Amino acid sequence: MADSRAPDPTRRSERSRRAIYAAALALVTEVGYARTTVEAIAARAGVGKQTIYRWWPSKGAVLLEAFLDLADQAARAADGGAGLHGIPDTGDLAADLRLVLRATVDEMNDPAFDLPSRALAAEGIVDAELGAEFARKLLEPQLQLYVKRLRAGQEAGDVRRDIDVRVALELLVGPLAHRWLMRTLPLTHAYADAVADLALYGLAPRP
Amino acid sequence: MADSRAPDPTRRSERSRRAIYAAALALVTEVGYARTTVEAIAARAGVGKQTIYRWWPSKGAVLLEAFLDLADQAARAADGGAGLHGIPDTGDLAADLRLVLRATVDEMNDPAFDLPSRALAAEGIVDAELGAEFARKLLEPQLQLYVKRLRAGQEAGDVRRDIDVRVALELLVGPLAHRWLMRTLPLTHAYADAVADLALYGLAPRP
Repeated sequence: MADSRAPDPTRRSERSRRAIYAAALALVTEVGYARTTVEAIAARAGVGKQTIYRWWPSKGAVLLEAFLDLADQAARAADGGAGLHGIPDTGDLAADLRLVLRATVDEMNDPAFDLPSRALAAEGIVDAELGAEFARKLLEPQLQLYVKRLRAGQEAGDVRRDIDVRVALELLVGPLAHRWLMRTLPLTHAYADAVADLALYGLAPRP
Repeated sequence: MADSRAPDPTRRSERSRRAIYAAALALVTEVGYARTTVEAIAARAGVGKQTIYRWWPSKGAVLLEAFLDLADQAARAADGGAGLHGIPDTGDLAADLRLVLRATVDEMNDPAFDLPSRALAAEGIVDAELGAEFARKLLEPQLQLYVKRLRAGQEAGDVRRDIDVRVALELLVGPLAHRWLMRTLPLTHAYADAVADLALYGLAPRP
């Protein structure tokens, strides 16, 4: 049956945008960052090259947005819809950190997130300029969510006031990233819980 | 002046072995793991391909040994000669951890370690089999040094007895690896000290 509505250019654009993101992520997974081209993204997405250049100045810009969208989708899938809008503040810091670290583990175990993210990480590790750009634009905004939650924790008396929370958050995200990228041991919810517990309460006995 | 000693095949072999390691690390830095070949290593080291195959069964085996040697050299340079023979146990756990994390920071900031190690990490991140093999053979033995030191800490009463030290050590090495590979912020001795302090005493206030 024909749709009675007139063709909607916004919906068509949205469809093209999503096809371009999907093509970009598929290509970076299959051939790596360096060999992904705007031409190949356009061909795979079924759009003209000029459509991509109308919206984005470069391959790097398309991929940055595709990864921002991927991270947001993955976070929505993992936490039941909240997306990258923040870390919950239920007043129970340990529970909130366990929740977000479990969601991160779920992302890392999801091939739709894992494979393109590995391709991007691998390129950023050997290409200093690209790595720094993606750290600044893609990673740092996510890390700032931890800064915000840990600062609220300092105000509530749940986090030491004498620590730099921008450094402290790396004790939460660093171990998960290490296990993910270095492939040492499985990424499980029990591991996420252990990291949250150890980061909060430390390795040394409490007096 | 001529050396009065007779030619020494052991010394000649040692010279060839070092030239092969250096060639393998230089190539992996310049062209990446995938495009490094036994032929190119042999040509660059000035030895015959058959010399390499007499000592190692494959490219991966040469590179594994070259990286083991690199890690040992880097550790010796960073800690004044001790090499990868352990983490000191002076009885002051905080000081011992600061020392080893500062040495790790120095390694990560040394181009001779940094560049080939990045090339290897990048390949392991996208190649699951290679990544797992290098984690098992190259990384895990280094992590076991932390296991040993933290177990001694448990016996001395400096580490909680209710924690899994194999997980706990990741709060020490994970943050440094994250900053190194993700290029977020500078790797400094002050950062190493902060990570050691936070890992030991935690983010939550002590009662």
